[in-house]
Amino acid sequence: MTAGSTVEAVKTALKTQAVETPSWAYGNSGTRFKVFAQPGVPRTPREKLDDAARVHEHTGVAPSVALHIPWDRVDDYAALAAYAKERGLRLGAINSNVFQDDDYKLGSVTNPDPAVRRKALAHLLECVDIMDATGSRDLKLWFSDGTNYPGQDDIRDRQDRLAEALSAVYERLGDGQRMLLEYKLFEPAFYTMDVPDWGTAYAHCLRLGEKAQVVVDTGHHAPGTNIEFIVAFLLREGKLGGFDFNSRFYADDDLMVGSADPFQLFRIMYEVVRGGGYSPDVAFMLDQCHNLEPKIPAIIRSVMNVQEATAKALLVDRPSLAAAQSAGDVLGANAVLMDAYNTDVRPLLAEVRTEMGVAADPMAAYRESGWAQRIVDERVGGEQAGWGA
Amino acid sequence: MTAGSTVEAVKTALKTQAVETPSWAYGNSGTRFKVFAQPGVPRTPREKLDDAARVHEHTGVAPSVALHIPWDRVDDYAALAAYAKERGLRLGAINSNVFQDDDYKLGSVTNPDPAVRRKALAHLLECVDIMDATGSRDLKLWFSDGTNYPGQDDIRDRQDRLAEALSAVYERLGDGQRMLLEYKLFEPAFYTMDVPDWGTAYAHCLRLGEKAQVVVDTGHHAPGTNIEFIVAFLLREGKLGGFDFNSRFYADDDLMVGSADPFQLFRIMYEVVRGGGYSPDVAFMLDQCHNLEPKIPAIIRSVMNVQEATAKALLVDRPSLAAAQSAGDVLGANAVLMDAYNTDVRPLLAEVRTEMGVAADPMAAYRESGWAQRIVDERVGGEQAGWGA
Amino acid sequence: MTAGSTVEAVKTALKTQAVETPSWAYGNSGTRFKVFAQPGVPRTPREKLDDAARVHEHTGVAPSVALHIPWDRVDDYAALAAYAKERGLRLGAINSNVFQDDDYKLGSVTNPDPAVRRKALAHLLECVDIMDATGSRDLKLWFSDGTNYPGQDDIRDRQDRLAEALSAVYERLGDGQRMLLEYKLFEPAFYTMDVPDWGTAYAHCLRLGEKAQVVVDTGHHAPGTNIEFIVAFLLREGKLGGFDFNSRFYADDDLMVGSADPFQLFRIMYEVVRGGGYSPDVAFMLDQCHNLEPKIPAIIRSVMNVQEATAKALLVDRPSLAAAQSAGDVLGANAVLMDAYNTDVRPLLAEVRTEMGVAADPMAAYRESGWAQRIVDERVGGEQAGWGA
Amino acid sequence: MTAGSTVEAVKTALKTQAVETPSWAYGNSGTRFKVFAQPGVPRTPREKLDDAARVHEHTGVAPSVALHIPWDRVDDYAALAAYAKERGLRLGAINSNVFQDDDYKLGSVTNPDPAVRRKALAHLLECVDIMDATGSRDLKLWFSDGTNYPGQDDIRDRQDRLAEALSAVYERLGDGQRMLLEYKLFEPAFYTMDVPDWGTAYAHCLRLGEKAQVVVDTGHHAPGTNIEFIVAFLLREGKLGGFDFNSRFYADDDLMVGSADPFQLFRIMYEVVRGGGYSPDVAFMLDQCHNLEPKIPAIIRSVMNVQEATAKALLVDRPSLAAAQSAGDVLGANAVLMDAYNTDVRPLLAEVRTEMGVAADPMAAYRESGWAQRIVDERVGGEQAGWGA
Repeated sequence: MTAGSTVEAVKTALKTQAVETPSWAYGNSGTRFKVFAQPGVPRTPREKLDDAARVHEHTGVAPSVALHIPWDRVDDYAALAAYAKERGLRLGAINSNVFQDDDYKLGSVTNPDPAVRRKALAHLLECVDIMDATGSRDLKLWFSDGTNYPGQDDIRDRQDRLAEALSAVYERLGDGQRMLLEYKLFEPAFYTMDVPDWGTAYAHCLRLGEKAQVVVDTGHHAPGTNIEFIVAFLLREGKLGGFDFNSRFYADDDLMVGSADPFQLFRIMYEVVRGGGYSPDVAFMLDQCHNLEPKIPAIIRSVMNVQEATAKALLVDRPSLAAAQSAGDVLGANAVLMDAYNTDVRPLLAEVRTEMGVAADPMAAYRESGWAQRIVDERVGGEQAGWGA
Repeated sequence: MTAGSTVEAVKTALKTQAVETPSWAYGNSGTRFKVFAQPGVPRTPREKLDDAARVHEHTGVAPSVALHIPWDRVDDYAALAAYAKERGLRLGAINSNVFQDDDYKLGSVTNPDPAVRRKALAHLLECVDIMDATGSRDLKLWFSDGTNYPGQDDIRDRQDRLAEALSAVYERLGDGQRMLLEYKLFEPAFYTMDVPDWGTAYAHCLRLGEKAQVVVDTGHHAPGTNIEFIVAFLLREGKLGGFDFNSRFYADDDLMVGSADPFQLFRIMYEVVRGGGYSPDVAFMLDQCHNLEPKIPAIIRSVMNVQEATAKALLVDRPSLAAAQSAGDVLGANAVLMDAYNTDVRPLLAEVRTEMGVAADPMAAYRESGWAQRIVDERVGGEQAGWGA
Repeated sequence: MTAGSTVEAVKTALKTQAVETPSWAYGNSGTRFKVFAQPGVPRTPREKLDDAARVHEHTGVAPSVALHIPWDRVDDYAALAAYAKERGLRLGAINSNVFQDDDYKLGSVTNPDPAVRRKALAHLLECVDIMDATGSRDLKLWFSDGTNYPGQDDIRDRQDRLAEALSAVYERLGDGQRMLLEYKLFEPAFYTMDVPDWGTAYAHCLRLGEKAQVVVDTGHHAPGTNIEFIVAFLLREGKLGGFDFNSRFYADDDLMVGSADPFQLFRIMYEVVRGGGYSPDVAFMLDQCHNLEPKIPAIIRSVMNVQEATAKALLVDRPSLAAAQSAGDVLGANAVLMDAYNTDVRPLLAEVRTEMGVAADPMAAYRESGWAQRIVDERVGGEQAGWGA
Repeated sequence: MTAGSTVEAVKTALKTQAVETPSWAYGNSGTRFKVFAQPGVPRTPREKLDDAARVHEHTGVAPSVALHIPWDRVDDYAALAAYAKERGLRLGAINSNVFQDDDYKLGSVTNPDPAVRRKALAHLLECVDIMDATGSRDLKLWFSDGTNYPGQDDIRDRQDRLAEALSAVYERLGDGQRMLLEYKLFEPAFYTMDVPDWGTAYAHCLRLGEKAQVVVDTGHHAPGTNIEFIVAFLLREGKLGGFDFNSRFYADDDLMVGSADPFQLFRIMYEVVRGGGYSPDVAFMLDQCHNLEPKIPAIIRSVMNVQEATAKALLVDRPSLAAAQSAGDVLGANAVLMDAYNTDVRPLLAEVRTEMGVAADPMAAYRESGWAQRIVDERVGGEQAGWGA
């Protein structure tokens, strides 16, 4: 167990946490079978910020919002940033989208057609322009590029094309700007993805330099992959740039983080803490789809789930753990970890919230705020935000 | 190797093969990220039949077309059946759709709301009405029903509701009509599917009676599942009603059958042949998405892939195999099977086709037919068929 | 939350729990690469019972011990039962072993050689004789039978042979005796197992009759399988006979139950409770390997893990859950379940134990008992128990 | 299709192929459940070489034999090398073994105990000494190191220890010597392996330098992993040192290469050829267990399977493939690849063998040689080689 002074340190650490929410999670999403629209969903980037402001108001730890271009394209990004600021928010990572134009059917930056590659690269560079305007630090790059059938394209040529595009974007990055490269096992490509695993992302980032970092999407791995190992390894290499949090039972199901395997989330957070990743250098971002459940409370719940896992990770009695590990005490070492995991940290987090001046129970506070009904009433007409697939 | 007289028997068997193509595979499809529309795609059920007629013309073994309701809803199904007949086709299985109405967000026949369940059941019964009009034998039931989060609904209550609906549909079936129940591990539900595996489908079909049969979709299993075992087992139980053929590397990727693991397809076809399933009682149907490749030639290729696997399965020297098996000769028995698999059956199939009066090379014949260009030129305007997600 | 009276009911229920420990878990085990022997490991069935008695003494809920024949073969089973009784234990399920004789290389009851099949069947019938002598209720049947290569043997013939053997054993069962049929995806057979999944076990048990029940080994599924669904389904069908508890990250790793995915264990236990399976009709058994960690405390920890998951499952506020489910409140229903899971039940279990007259902290009690040192000192010479592979 | 001159080039290439067979595959192996001993199995390294000589005699492409230390420890390695040479063989890669000593229970080079780490390192350095004596080029390093339970040891500390040991071994390598680092997802460690994936192996090799290369064991990946992508990527990075060939349906089943998914083997070999890996720099090694089937013919079959996949890969019409790929012709490009795969290359390989002066049908030649019976008759008494687990 942890002494009182340590609990204070844990509370202090928890108060500094920041979980970035994604603008697209406030809009409609679904599967290839059906998108079930929800009433009250935002129609504009500003309305997404309005919703995100409620999440931050009730949790106190969701101060920034990731944008997705072109879904959040506006004429004046500085104005959008100012709008965010008025609501207590800031604009976070810029997410590129090179998968929804008809030209990208066979790939974007890895397309066999050089004209398509140029177009994709231009979009990526535009995203850096937007970062300049919004003051965002991170450019998050996810490529849907890949192939569906053996032989469809040359695996290695595509790596050459990918390297070339990444290099051009890297050169364009300004001071204090970073590139976060995401990997994904499959979907939408069903035979090869061009960045299928952490090793591929790592190798590219290593060649590019310090501003290129790997981002771990918790839903993007093969069955059985030990994600916390990857986290520990990347932190050791200085190459972990951040997380896209979500959870899954099967594939990239994009369920609420912590809802499928809360113990795994705890183990990941423990490696973050142990490896020095509980710092601004490692971005905590959500990347989820709320296909069935109402979006704002789902996001609040997700932020709380990250907090709970973090609290447990911070509560691990590391001296006792190290002692048991070094003594080869398998059961003892495991017990130290499990003791933290089995702790009910909800009372501690209620205290933290109260001390931060936010509601002890964010879900109840949102429910009582009337916001859910208000947006249903007010957001009538127009076109709801969605993925535009 | 197989003696000459046996080769004749194999050729005779191959000439009787029938692979049903799905109307929806002629329309647009994609992933949740993007549907890439293709020029020339049909806009109506009749245009789908026009395309299917080309597949049958060039292969000689694709005489029927599965319909999907409501995607293929028409006012006069008898007229549609006549239209098919004029083109040398017949209408095949009727596929129900209880997943694209907003009411079905939390399920159709397993929905906690009885009003939604009644609506879903009414649709299923309408499908049997359509079968009466089209003369279709098979009603194919796939339910997207399930839950995304633990606790979302009661697993067992949903089974009770499912059983009730299935029973009502079963009672409605006429003489010579069957119900084929499909199972799927996940998607679109991400925590539980209400019919996730063959055991669940089997147990329901067993209680219903002889007209209820299990359909095996080759893409709907957990990683590592031995599909040919399931095929052999269901045939032994008299409960294999048919196949939805496709292939996959990861999840339910709906690639062309035989494109991801042709050896697996051969093993499946071997169990079909060995278990007495190479008969009209077991329906061979395609259920695929051609997201990137042109649809008609992809379907021709898929039909050919099924033929090649079937030819190899028929060529297995079963007396030699049985002798090696019974002698416990592991390598010898495996070698007998592999000898058939390693045979290049394309010349044999070219002969079969020539003897059937169709093109020896269906892909070339389609390419030379000019149909691909003609539909691009003629099918201008209107709304292309698709999943309507 | 749960009212005080409910907590009393939960405590009462917890006091009735019984978790059977397996005799072989007290012996040495390992992987194909190495078995690391541990000092103090039992050399005889009686010494295994001595160790099991410590587990029961410290937990109060491990009153029976499963035997494995021939690993636990003795001349006088009645005497062994009496020895157990003197230590506060009883003999539990009899586990057959038809996988370690050279004759079983290509299978036991499914072997192509009828002489081998007769030998295997004789062993199974001998196990029922032993049940008569020990007073055991359950015969647990796990077959390593299967094939390593496609074509090696005929899948369907093997089912016929399996059915024949099961039928002969079933006929031999006396009043109050049951047959529990276990399934396993793979290992030691690497292409097909003859009972690979719950559907296969279920179909055989259904034909046999009421005394044949399925046993769910939590480690024996394909990746992604929803085990709690299977539990719920089998309970609905009246076909769940019991559990072999353990946990795994990858394959059949046989780690301590609850150590890899405690949330999954909770969900399983919830379905047990909800489906009426928290009763003597459903046997809770451990089936684990303690390759690295000391065996007795690992088993104590495992029993405690089952208790904790059970306590949480019993604490679920089922009226609130049903209300949220029936209202289609996805987040609300999930929250009810998670509220129970997130509860720290260790204080409650400490109370339960104190009221039962056992140590509040079984791990500490064992540590302080001196038993670990005593067996190292006393069990010198002889041959340690193990799998005998 | 491929013109005549190209076929000659393919034949020429096939004649240069070399597949190394592993000494341990000639000995007994099994699962944790049972090792089924086979009559005639070698008792000494020399007898293993005798058997390997038969494989080379009948195939002509298996000229070297990998050793495993300590399983193949002898007093005089130069004499063993001479013995091999007399039989037309040479000694190949040296495989270290730091997993079968009781000290390695919690790891070898990553063990928390520095004394154990020193012992493990000493063994690795001894293996380089042996390489000096045998003239072997490659040191193959596979570490069973890892943990079974979360918290058991510190993931990152173990990486530090691993890096330290690898560095010490690397420094010891002489001119023309290489270190091949193998990765494996799981087993025998069941929570973390210290080198679980290609990314980890790659990162370590990159830091070490040019003599450190990654070895791809085809059975060591998570379900769904695209192995040919890894092959293509490592070749692009100049970091593919070789293969451990085998195949699997589930986990690391160590079945005969090409027996589970011959199409995958072909795709892998295609990437080898395309990426310039069909050269002496990439070692082709078998690493299999013949648990049920007789060992020598199983190894002959395996060598033939590699040859067949290689022949098909060499037959791919690369100009046509490149043209279709660059035109974005998905079906056309796939068809070019499949045309090669669907070719029956057995007649071509029979020609190649005849021209090489070996039997056209190696399996038949071995069967007729009488060797199988001879070793059963002659190898009486003594202790059969095995894993010694």
